[in-house]
Amino acid sequence: MGEGGMSDHGGREGEGEENMAAWLIGVNNLKIQPFIHPPLGPHDARVRMKAVGICGSDVHYLKTMSCVHFVVKEPMVIGHECAGVIEEVGSEVKSLVVGDRVALEPGINCWRCDFCKSGRYNLCPDMKFFATPPVHGSLANQVIHPADLCFKLPDNVSLEEGAMCEPLSVGVHACRRAEVGPETKVLIMGAGPIGLVTMLAARAFGAPKIVIVDVDDHRLSVAKNLGADDIVKVSTNIQDITEEVIQIHKAMGSEVDATFDCAGFNKTMSTALNATRSGGKVCLVGMGHNEMTVPLTPAAAREVDIIGIFRYKNTWPLCLEFLRSGKIDVKPLITHRFGFSQKEVEEAFETSARGGNAIKVMFNL
Amino acid sequence: MGEGGMSDHGGREGEGEENMAAWLIGVNNLKIQPFIHPPLGPHDARVRMKAVGICGSDVHYLKTMSCVHFVVKEPMVIGHECAGVIEEVGSEVKSLVVGDRVALEPGINCWRCDFCKSGRYNLCPDMKFFATPPVHGSLANQVIHPADLCFKLPDNVSLEEGAMCEPLSVGVHACRRAEVGPETKVLIMGAGPIGLVTMLAARAFGAPKIVIVDVDDHRLSVAKNLGADDIVKVSTNIQDITEEVIQIHKAMGSEVDATFDCAGFNKTMSTALNATRSGGKVCLVGMGHNEMTVPLTPAAAREVDIIGIFRYKNTWPLCLEFLRSGKIDVKPLITHRFGFSQKEVEEAFETSARGGNAIKVMFNL
Amino acid sequence: MGEGGMSDHGGREGEGEENMAAWLIGVNNLKIQPFIHPPLGPHDARVRMKAVGICGSDVHYLKTMSCVHFVVKEPMVIGHECAGVIEEVGSEVKSLVVGDRVALEPGINCWRCDFCKSGRYNLCPDMKFFATPPVHGSLANQVIHPADLCFKLPDNVSLEEGAMCEPLSVGVHACRRAEVGPETKVLIMGAGPIGLVTMLAARAFGAPKIVIVDVDDHRLSVAKNLGADDIVKVSTNIQDITEEVIQIHKAMGSEVDATFDCAGFNKTMSTALNATRSGGKVCLVGMGHNEMTVPLTPAAAREVDIIGIFRYKNTWPLCLEFLRSGKIDVKPLITHRFGFSQKEVEEAFETSARGGNAIKVMFNL
Amino acid sequence: MGEGGMSDHGGREGEGEENMAAWLIGVNNLKIQPFIHPPLGPHDARVRMKAVGICGSDVHYLKTMSCVHFVVKEPMVIGHECAGVIEEVGSEVKSLVVGDRVALEPGINCWRCDFCKSGRYNLCPDMKFFATPPVHGSLANQVIHPADLCFKLPDNVSLEEGAMCEPLSVGVHACRRAEVGPETKVLIMGAGPIGLVTMLAARAFGAPKIVIVDVDDHRLSVAKNLGADDIVKVSTNIQDITEEVIQIHKAMGSEVDATFDCAGFNKTMSTALNATRSGGKVCLVGMGHNEMTVPLTPAAAREVDIIGIFRYKNTWPLCLEFLRSGKIDVKPLITHRFGFSQKEVEEAFETSARGGNAIKVMFNL
Repeated sequence: MGEGGMSDHGGREGEGEENMAAWLIGVNNLKIQPFIHPPLGPHDARVRMKAVGICGSDVHYLKTMSCVHFVVKEPMVIGHECAGVIEEVGSEVKSLVVGDRVALEPGINCWRCDFCKSGRYNLCPDMKFFATPPVHGSLANQVIHPADLCFKLPDNVSLEEGAMCEPLSVGVHACRRAEVGPETKVLIMGAGPIGLVTMLAARAFGAPKIVIVDVDDHRLSVAKNLGADDIVKVSTNIQDITEEVIQIHKAMGSEVDATFDCAGFNKTMSTALNATRSGGKVCLVGMGHNEMTVPLTPAAAREVDIIGIFRYKNTWPLCLEFLRSGKIDVKPLITHRFGFSQKEVEEAFETSARGGNAIKVMFNL
Repeated sequence: MGEGGMSDHGGREGEGEENMAAWLIGVNNLKIQPFIHPPLGPHDARVRMKAVGICGSDVHYLKTMSCVHFVVKEPMVIGHECAGVIEEVGSEVKSLVVGDRVALEPGINCWRCDFCKSGRYNLCPDMKFFATPPVHGSLANQVIHPADLCFKLPDNVSLEEGAMCEPLSVGVHACRRAEVGPETKVLIMGAGPIGLVTMLAARAFGAPKIVIVDVDDHRLSVAKNLGADDIVKVSTNIQDITEEVIQIHKAMGSEVDATFDCAGFNKTMSTALNATRSGGKVCLVGMGHNEMTVPLTPAAAREVDIIGIFRYKNTWPLCLEFLRSGKIDVKPLITHRFGFSQKEVEEAFETSARGGNAIKVMFNL
Repeated sequence: MGEGGMSDHGGREGEGEENMAAWLIGVNNLKIQPFIHPPLGPHDARVRMKAVGICGSDVHYLKTMSCVHFVVKEPMVIGHECAGVIEEVGSEVKSLVVGDRVALEPGINCWRCDFCKSGRYNLCPDMKFFATPPVHGSLANQVIHPADLCFKLPDNVSLEEGAMCEPLSVGVHACRRAEVGPETKVLIMGAGPIGLVTMLAARAFGAPKIVIVDVDDHRLSVAKNLGADDIVKVSTNIQDITEEVIQIHKAMGSEVDATFDCAGFNKTMSTALNATRSGGKVCLVGMGHNEMTVPLTPAAAREVDIIGIFRYKNTWPLCLEFLRSGKIDVKPLITHRFGFSQKEVEEAFETSARGGNAIKVMFNL
Repeated sequence: MGEGGMSDHGGREGEGEENMAAWLIGVNNLKIQPFIHPPLGPHDARVRMKAVGICGSDVHYLKTMSCVHFVVKEPMVIGHECAGVIEEVGSEVKSLVVGDRVALEPGINCWRCDFCKSGRYNLCPDMKFFATPPVHGSLANQVIHPADLCFKLPDNVSLEEGAMCEPLSVGVHACRRAEVGPETKVLIMGAGPIGLVTMLAARAFGAPKIVIVDVDDHRLSVAKNLGADDIVKVSTNIQDITEEVIQIHKAMGSEVDATFDCAGFNKTMSTALNATRSGGKVCLVGMGHNEMTVPLTPAAAREVDIIGIFRYKNTWPLCLEFLRSGKIDVKPLITHRFGFSQKEVEEAFETSARGGNAIKVMFNL
């Protein structure tokens, strides 16, 4: 990406201005720099970004240049929780018109492998996903994206709420995999952002009772305000989970049908396994340590299934319906807002990294 | 069944002889002693036992007076893998007549709890199961059992094969839970009795390819003879499972869709998790250590589901159909046979406990 | 049931008074007469009836002494939608105590057949069901019933609402079979009592949009008041359903995922099949004509599945949860109330038979 | 691809010869004429056709220029059951090399609609399917096709067998939808080509007993030879199906779990509905009359589900596995073979149209 030569592609820019993006250059080094997006294909849309949220994985990349087994080797545009406005559509696009407000599903899968063909496209090994190296992300003025991954927002859903479809999709996918419905009493281990979106999704799927567990009073009070039926404060100091399980069952007032471990520690997973009723499900949502030491055998011998999730699939339409109908309100999760300047980008990531009261940090572009 | 000196229970005996049973009295102490069975209810059958197999749990009770969390506190009749001939049926029984050869499903559940009502009766907390304290077992001349748990044998299925429905049911239930079908390439960790019945069941469910892993050459050669497509010898000395997984994939010639851990060690479960394809299933069949240290998070992040089993449900009709059609041949599993004398009972349990070449030790009563 | 000799069983009556019940004697002939209920078994409860609703099948029996293939040959106590108060429990009953307010599931199945054992007990061929000949019903001062079929009412659910669990169960079972959830746009053909409970259940299962179709303005306005998103008035005079389907799609604003035919005419079923999207489901809920002439082939060629229902299974706990949480309000369905005198029983059945504004006619005993 | 005589399309031909195809010009008018196939895309393969079967729909197009709601308005290359040899692959194709023998799945779906994304791509409204107007078919020397729809044949599977994957896929998809497994006793109405492939598929899915019904002795004897457990001859003259159902149950020796109506008449569907046990499934496979008059209500009231199929999805790998393992032998279905000359094409279609002993008519190109 040299200087000067923008002229050769300037025609792809909306109004002639340069497309800027937040590039991850190195550890703790984010720079707003020009970003030449690819040409608009016949099935693509050009989207002016309006709202982009910061995800835990974004912070992880910034701090370590890696996340799980993905390593950033070349400068990469960051960001993947986003919504914007359609500025141009490809020749074959019929579902969208210029001006449409859309939320973007960030992953482009291959549609040629067995996973894609059999309805589990989230497991596609050739997935191209915003801000997963070497694929660029969406914290930019404009991005090019397949039109079928741009979902039109209902009139009463804001662009910021649209960007929240991405984290919410994690909760929705987890609830689908755990088959949460109006008979599923739900336990959630961890009241961080993932625990909260899982709680909101479980409620929207009809869960009649939700108990949430954490070590932090503030997080628990947020969870309570967002609709948890009951909360259980635990301590990291105590290793015996027997008492915890008793407390949880007391808070639930019944057995636990499905538990979501949104923390991923040996202790949270052990509590999840022991607290869930025979024949129930434990879904491991967050990324924890690779190896876990947990009471697997007794859980298996009670037919407690352990399921995991990888991202999501087919979640945007349902998320938007939940937002439209008011079954889910994500607005309280957006705790901080920043503009798209070099300084604000740095501040925003610092705010997200610090945690504290921050749940979701959002850019307004 | 006359008047007079029937003493207190003789009237319930078929031909006046005393009903004898193998009682577990204490550690390593089994005694053949009289067993007064309960009265015949209107929906019950009185069955003359003809074939009773020894299960690993029977041996465990003999050696320790306990198994998992069940403890033998009072002398208990042992045995639960059994088949026999109907000698008498209750007044309401229409499905059976005297002389019918039957295999017995050993568990009597409550039919009042949510598990029973929703089709998961194996999880019933009030299950009364042969030889699970304080319920007596079936290594006896005669037992009383609900007629609907006595399944008529097809003409070409022997009583010994009928008794094998019990261990086979474990494999069948495991395959059902893992949804094994004609597209499921199956890996089995452990070529012991449970591994073998799981292999036979997987084949009968249509699995196109089955690879079985063990540390023992003899067990592996048995597995090969019983139909494994390929075998992989591993060593307990080597802790790094990377090479094992490569060997397994090579033997399979493709990805693994479902893995059954029939050994229950940290290492076998770790191999199971790492060898199974994204979106596949790992079923923990055997009883291992309570706590396991395994790479749970990466498996969950590939949506590899971990499922367990507890006993079985609704398996007898299918087992009998598999035996009738020849899709499964359990005869090669029966390696030793004993009569029902005090001496032979002791020898039989010793043979089973020693392991070695013994797969299934069977009593012919 | 002679005169005088009540003394021999009077001990089974709560306070010595005679147990009276509404007996169906012949066509249009209902008489309140003494009813000697069976003895209390160890797992039974004696329930003082407090609220009993009239079902369409009750009226059908009264008018014809038959319903579908069931024929009343001997005088039979009528009624099966009911709730009451526990007056006595059998020796083995632990889940209930005297004074508990309960709703009664009316069918006692055998738990010995394949249907019962595999979780589809509603299909049990040996079902004993209140007021299905030759089994007596529950419009009586007291009935004896298995305790596990007596479901305790939450504090905020009235006895009348408890009795409504029975009709509501039909809607719940239909929605379960059609897999209604937060992504299922629902069409309901027919705004009678069954259509209305199906609508309420679909809403509680999360259906984001429900359109209901009928020929009657009053019924449609009731449906609208009870929560239908839109209504479509059709005419029985017009046989061409093309225009109807267009109107329905317009009202829905999208495709129809699941349709419930709660009317059972050729025309309603044809509209159901044609209006439902490819891959969707049509559930036939009401009892229509035996033979139907409908466009089956084009529906099958679009993989529109046609499913039916027979009664329900495992619905009471969910119905009570829906009532407790307020997700369903059945009170507006109860349009008429009567006491339990000979005159009022006759009037009540006439009211129900007339239809008109009557949705649910309820006895308060 | 040399310089010189590229004429207008020659450059795309493999060895310079002209690509010939069988064009449907009008009713009963098929002509072998040059066919300029589209350019090879990066994910495409160029396949030299070696075996092409004639399907009932091909004959229907020839006789009427239409099939169901598809109308041939422009001359169209016919044929869609096919296998061949790879002659060239696009730049991005990694799964295939020149010389690979492949079977072709004929439909190209959009991968952008909800059906495609959720795993039901066969319902894609934008499907481009061989020989479904206006899309050309595959009875040609060469075709261009997406490489991921070209499935490599196992060494022991011939090209003719490869072409048979297409009709076999119909049976496989039907069995999958009806959830046929080792416990499913299967009834098949109609022993035509579709009935036969459904029978073969049901057997491969493990069906323990299969009874097939037809009016024709020859067809029934073919079915018996191909593996039906029993056959039932019926007559079109008799309208009362009661006796038929009795005969079927006698032949089955038990209840029917799943029935496939591969004929599509009122009578066959009525028999299917009445013969199937409560809670079973009836799958309508063949294309019958639009309107059907059948006893829908009693079937629905016994929870007999009616399901249909449209083509198939993800069936080629399983079909090839069934052929490789010998679980299915399709060779006996291929009754007639023809070369690819104008005269033979005409004769082949006449042979297929006449029916008689012809099951599958195959071209060897």
